[in-house]
Amino acid sequence: MPNPDPTQDVVRDSPQGVAPDPLGPRDPRDVPRDLPPDATAGEVLAPYLHARSADFLRGLRLHTESGAGTGGAEEAARTLRAAARRISGTLHTYRPLLDPAWADQLRAELAWLSGTLALEHACTSRLVRLADALARLAGGGTAATAAVPAARAGGDPEGSRGLTVGAARAGALLERQLTLARTRAHSAALQALGSARFHAVADAVALLASEVPLGPAGAARADEVLDAPAAVVERRLRDAVGVLPLARAAAPYNAAALGLTAGESQDAPWHQTRGLLRLHRYAAEVLRGDGVPDPVLYEAARALDRHRDAAEAAAAASAAARTPRIAPATAYALGVLHADQRHEVEAARFAFQRAWSRTTAPVR
Amino acid sequence: MPNPDPTQDVVRDSPQGVAPDPLGPRDPRDVPRDLPPDATAGEVLAPYLHARSADFLRGLRLHTESGAGTGGAEEAARTLRAAARRISGTLHTYRPLLDPAWADQLRAELAWLSGTLALEHACTSRLVRLADALARLAGGGTAATAAVPAARAGGDPEGSRGLTVGAARAGALLERQLTLARTRAHSAALQALGSARFHAVADAVALLASEVPLGPAGAARADEVLDAPAAVVERRLRDAVGVLPLARAAAPYNAAALGLTAGESQDAPWHQTRGLLRLHRYAAEVLRGDGVPDPVLYEAARALDRHRDAAEAAAAASAAARTPRIAPATAYALGVLHADQRHEVEAARFAFQRAWSRTTAPVR
Repeated sequence: MPNPDPTQDVVRDSPQGVAPDPLGPRDPRDVPRDLPPDATAGEVLAPYLHARSADFLRGLRLHTESGAGTGGAEEAARTLRAAARRISGTLHTYRPLLDPAWADQLRAELAWLSGTLALEHACTSRLVRLADALARLAGGGTAATAAVPAARAGGDPEGSRGLTVGAARAGALLERQLTLARTRAHSAALQALGSARFHAVADAVALLASEVPLGPAGAARADEVLDAPAAVVERRLRDAVGVLPLARAAAPYNAAALGLTAGESQDAPWHQTRGLLRLHRYAAEVLRGDGVPDPVLYEAARALDRHRDAAEAAAAASAAARTPRIAPATAYALGVLHADQRHEVEAARFAFQRAWSRTTAPVR
Repeated sequence: MPNPDPTQDVVRDSPQGVAPDPLGPRDPRDVPRDLPPDATAGEVLAPYLHARSADFLRGLRLHTESGAGTGGAEEAARTLRAAARRISGTLHTYRPLLDPAWADQLRAELAWLSGTLALEHACTSRLVRLADALARLAGGGTAATAAVPAARAGGDPEGSRGLTVGAARAGALLERQLTLARTRAHSAALQALGSARFHAVADAVALLASEVPLGPAGAARADEVLDAPAAVVERRLRDAVGVLPLARAAAPYNAAALGLTAGESQDAPWHQTRGLLRLHRYAAEVLRGDGVPDPVLYEAARALDRHRDAAEAAAAASAAARTPRIAPATAYALGVLHADQRHEVEAARFAFQRAWSRTTAPVR
């Protein structure tokens, strides 16, 4: 968990005396790299999509070469997912410059693919996150078990040992439930990767390595047509950030994220921002022409990933607590775990707010 | 809960180029008020003790006039406790200037009295704290009940309604347990206030209104003998603060305070600091001759009070979870509540660290 020092916060000021641009000043890092002045939009888009297509095919090769369940298979799925997300994002953002029917169709198929592949990964990381949290909560370095209140221990069949047993049982219950979900997701992913539908997606992505189906605007000059689609995404991102309760998130320990139930309605705007920030980052990658992430936006994106992961882990703990016939000590441990992960949700909002305040583009 | 703005932190710098004093620079607010240059220590101590004795007698009158269980009785107990703590603290700190046998004896009796009176107050405020937290957790303004994950709700007799029921049952259980404890504490306090032992304490305190039994050093010049006893307390306070993990507390969301069990061993140094800070504040009151609290030290003290209250509330939730034969949903709600209060413990450490960093006397 990042422990930022509040005294070291650097908020870069916006330039003074500049006529207000509705989207705020452009980040100089978003400016297209050196191109001939008459380069077309297609000449900017194509190399980026070629490179992501190559990534995708490399992931596919890794998948074919690796046995199921090995580290190689995981690496293959990660590579496939990352490439699919970037291609899909580019098709979405720069759709006005592409063949729209082709872009829509491929994007839908890539969404299906990355959704299917993401599920197994999500189950694995959720299980790891919850097991780590339980281990930290149950013991840690602070001799926590020695500190159990002695009160009521006398005539109490549960006793302080019951809390430790409860943590172990909660861990076993979560492992059972999430392993089952992961096994199902793994089968679904394997089935997807062997399907005719997947082979059609792979063929379409492979074609991208040599040719990108552009629309008429793709032949226009890059400096005239590339900025507008990226600006639309940026505007949507800023609108989404604009409705987040950032002032509240900036004050640590505001206890806004914790409720007995998961609080998914308050999480939704953050999840939506996460998706838009991803689109924005990919749109900027196209303009810069490299795969190097902007460090501050990357930090903001990581915070929103953590927000999503913690929210889903909390929901898993809450769902497990509603398993019939569990022991009270198990339910108690799951309640502590749920609150711990909602606390992480709050911490992630704090981290996002800090990262976002460091972006050069000020929030209006 | 205070929501300090990290950008508005004002850390006063220590004077540069001054020879290091092992206790750091003296706070100018600690300097004795205007006194004739030849005033004795007794002439400083006596008016302070006279005033606290008058406070005590006023509390006693309030108690006699008020019926049991009314607001007046609560106010009476608060006034008695505050006066007893200050007299006791003064007897402790300035013992070298007083008749030591008398001071030790009265201090022991005042400790018995304020301990007895504090118990009822602690039960009441713990119950209020836990009920408020449960109300916040169970509902709040964020439509939390609508956000219960739909997963597993199908074949689940507990369901999301079970979580709300669990919160209500947890509240009822805590109310039952803490009301019982409060009733016992109330009876004990009434019994104490009617006892011969109490009448002896009250007589001793009443005598303080006119005469303070000084030792030989009490006749020495105030500017020669008053500083040293206060400095001893300050040194002990700084030593205690010095071993607190303040760097960790300064980083919000460090998750250091949360464990499945109450973590009382890690709380002890904070509780000890709380007692020493109180002694230090009272010693400074004597030197200043007024009852006006130093605002920053008061804020630090409030943070440590909150730390203690939250730690004890968490322990009460944890103890309630070990009640035999409670429903899993009740135990789950108590687990969330326990974690919520340990989160408050962490927040209080953060708040103390911020207040302490603003004291003019820098921590070595």
